Amino acid sequence: MLQFEILHESNRSRARVGRIHTSHGIIDTPGFVAVGTSGTIKALDLATVHAIGLQLMFCNTYHLMVQPGTAVIQEAGGLHAFTGRNLPIITDSGGFQVFSLAYGSVANELKSKGSKSGANLVVKIDEEGVLFRSYRDGSMLLLTPESSIAAQKALGADIIIPFDELPPYHIAPEALKQSLARTHRWEKRSLEAHLKNPQGQSIYGVIHGGVDLELRSLSCQELTSLPFDGFAIGGSMGKNKEEMQHLLSHTLPLLPKEKPNHLLGMGDLESIDRGVALGIDTFDSSYPTKAARHGLLLTGQGPLKLEKALYSRQFSPIEEGCSCPTCQYHGLAYLHHLFKAKELTGLTLATIHNLHFMVQYMKGIREKILIDQI
Amino acid sequence: MLQFEILHESNRSRARVGRIHTSHGIIDTPGFVAVGTSGTIKALDLATVHAIGLQLMFCNTYHLMVQPGTAVIQEAGGLHAFTGRNLPIITDSGGFQVFSLAYGSVANELKSKGSKSGANLVVKIDEEGVLFRSYRDGSMLLLTPESSIAAQKALGADIIIPFDELPPYHIAPEALKQSLARTHRWEKRSLEAHLKNPQGQSIYGVIHGGVDLELRSLSCQELTSLPFDGFAIGGSMGKNKEEMQHLLSHTLPLLPKEKPNHLLGMGDLESIDRGVALGIDTFDSSYPTKAARHGLLLTGQGPLKLEKALYSRQFSPIEEGCSCPTCQYHGLAYLHHLFKAKELTGLTLATIHNLHFMVQYMKGIREKILIDQI
Repeated sequence: MLQFEILHESNRSRARVGRIHTSHGIIDTPGFVAVGTSGTIKALDLATVHAIGLQLMFCNTYHLMVQPGTAVIQEAGGLHAFTGRNLPIITDSGGFQVFSLAYGSVANELKSKGSKSGANLVVKIDEEGVLFRSYRDGSMLLLTPESSIAAQKALGADIIIPFDELPPYHIAPEALKQSLARTHRWEKRSLEAHLKNPQGQSIYGVIHGGVDLELRSLSCQELTSLPFDGFAIGGSMGKNKEEMQHLLSHTLPLLPKEKPNHLLGMGDLESIDRGVALGIDTFDSSYPTKAARHGLLLTGQGPLKLEKALYSRQFSPIEEGCSCPTCQYHGLAYLHHLFKAKELTGLTLATIHNLHFMVQYMKGIREKILIDQI
Repeated sequence: MLQFEILHESNRSRARVGRIHTSHGIIDTPGFVAVGTSGTIKALDLATVHAIGLQLMFCNTYHLMVQPGTAVIQEAGGLHAFTGRNLPIITDSGGFQVFSLAYGSVANELKSKGSKSGANLVVKIDEEGVLFRSYRDGSMLLLTPESSIAAQKALGADIIIPFDELPPYHIAPEALKQSLARTHRWEKRSLEAHLKNPQGQSIYGVIHGGVDLELRSLSCQELTSLPFDGFAIGGSMGKNKEEMQHLLSHTLPLLPKEKPNHLLGMGDLESIDRGVALGIDTFDSSYPTKAARHGLLLTGQGPLKLEKALYSRQFSPIEEGCSCPTCQYHGLAYLHHLFKAKELTGLTLATIHNLHFMVQYMKGIREKILIDQI
C-alpha cells in the first residue's frame, strides 16, 4: 500500500510537496502522470522513460481488457511483469471509456460533436453495471464495480480506481443527483471488492458531482467517510479554467490533507498551475504525448509547431538549455525534416522532449513550493 | 580519408577481419551497415543506436536531395552535424533510385511486378545524366556524376559512391556492354569531381557488369586502375544465391586486397555468410529494419512472426540469452500485444532487437574468422 509523505506545505497557497511511496518506487508530488493506455507510453521504450525520469504511468483498464485481455496480463504476473516496467502504475476503472462510448466524451459534447459512433457498442446500463461489445472481436463484456476491480486486481497496478458513472455534461439536475448516488454505491461496492483482496494495491475514491458545488460537497462527505487511500477528482470540471478553478477551490478543502489526490485527465500547464496552488498532487493527461505526435513541441514560450517552414533551417535545439535527450543531440531543422519525411523517429524524439518538459516543469513547481513562491 | 587495417586473414577462405578508420569512428569488418535513408534509422533514436553498437549508416542521396534538400544539410554543416550523429556515414549516388524510377527495381522486375509507377518522373537519360521530377514538389532535378558528387560533398558522408547506371535485369548483351562503358565514364567523372575537393571523404568505385563474368572482369580492371579508396559491388547479382556466389567468387579476387569492399543492398544472413567467406567486408540492407516493422524478428532459429497467436502468452524473451535492450526488459507476449494494439513502441522494440541481432551476428562472424573457422 502507498505511504504519502508531505515534505512541505506552502505558506502562500494550499500547494504542497510530497512523496508517494509505492512498492514500485516513488512518485514526487506535485507530479505529472504520463498516459500509457495500452501498457506503453506511445513511441517510447523503457530505457527512455528512465532517462527522462518519468514516474507514474496511467493505463486504461478498458483498453487492456479488450487487448490483450486481463487474463493474459494476470498470467504474466500483472502489468509490471507483463510490460517489464519497474515503476509505479495507476489504472482506471474502465468506466470513463464505456460511458464515453455510450454518451460521447464530454469534450466532444461541449464542442457539439456528439460523436456517438461507439454508442451501439454499449448494450445495457443498469444498477449492476454496463454491458458492452468489444470493438475488437464483438464479444460481450460486462463492466461492474466487482468486475472492474477484478480486472484491476489482474492488472495489479499500484493505484486503482473504483468503477464510477460518467454522466453527460448536459444532464438535468435530478438525473445528476441520481447518477451521483449510483456512483457512490458503485464506488462503495468497488472498495469492498478491493478490501477482500488488497494485494498491496491502493485505491483512490473518485469525487463526482459535476459542476454542482453542493453535490461535490456531498460526494466528498460520502467518499471521505470510506477508507480510500487517496482521492481523484472526476466528472465534468465545467466549461473553462475559471469554472474548474471555482470547483476545485470548493472541493479540495473537503478532502483529507494527509491523503494524496489526483486530478483526472487534466494536464495542460494552466490547469497544472491552478491545480497545484489549490493542492492537487498529481495530474494525468495524454496532451504532451498526443501533441508531440502532431508536431507540437512544448517550450517555456508556449507550444511550437514543428512543421512550420521557418524551422526547416533552424539548427538550434527546440529550446536553448533544454537538457532532454532530443535537444542534446538534435536541432529543430532535423526534427522538422523527420516530420516532413514521415520518419517514426521524429515521433519518438518529439515525445521525449514533451515528456521531459513536463517532468522538468513539475520539478520547477516543487522547487517553487519549497520556497513558498507558489 | 579512411584507413583500412586488416587484422587477420583466414587460412580457410578469403574471409578477413579488419577495421576501417574514419574521422567519425571505426567500422569493424565484416560489418553490417544499417540503412538510414533519410538520415535516421527508422524508429530508432541515437542513444539506442549507441546502445546497440551500430557503426556505419547508409543514407540515400536521392531522398535527402528531395527532402530536406542538400542545401539545408550543407548549411547545417553536413549530415553529421544535421543529424547530430557522430558515427560514420556512407551515402549512395542517387543513381539506384532514379534508375529504379525509370526501369522499376530489379527485384520487382524479377517478380514480374514491373511497378513503373515512377517512370513518368524521369524526364531524360543521356550521357550527361538523368533529369527527373521531384516526387515532393514536382521541381526538376538533374543528376549527373558532377551533381551527385556535389550533393554528396554537401552531405559530407565519410564514404561516398560515384554516379552509376543501374541497367534493367533483362537487358540485351550489347546494351549491357554500352551501359557498363557509360557507367565507367560516369564513375571516372565522379572520381575527378571528388578529387578536386576531397574534403576528407573517401570514395568507393562500384563494380558493374551484371551477371556477365567477362564484363565484371572488365569493370574490375577499369576501376581498380583508378585511385578509388575502396570498391562496392553493384548491379544485378543474378536470380539466386548460387548465381551471386558464382559472380562474387569471380569478382572478389580481381579487387585489391588492401582496400575495403562493400556488397550493395544485400544483407540477409545467407548472403552475408557466403559473402564473408568470399572476402566481402561490409553489407548494407534494409531487411532487418523493414522486417522488424512487419513483426518479423530475427533469431538464430530463423525469423519469428510476432503476430502469430501462439506468442500472445509466451512471456519469455524473443530468444533466450539475447542481450538486446528489448529482450532485457520484455517478453514476446508484450511485443505481440504492442503490435496487436498498433503501438509505435512495438516498431521500435522490434527494430532494436533485429539490429542488435545483426551486430552480434557480425561479431560472431569476426570471432570465427579470427580462429580460421570461416
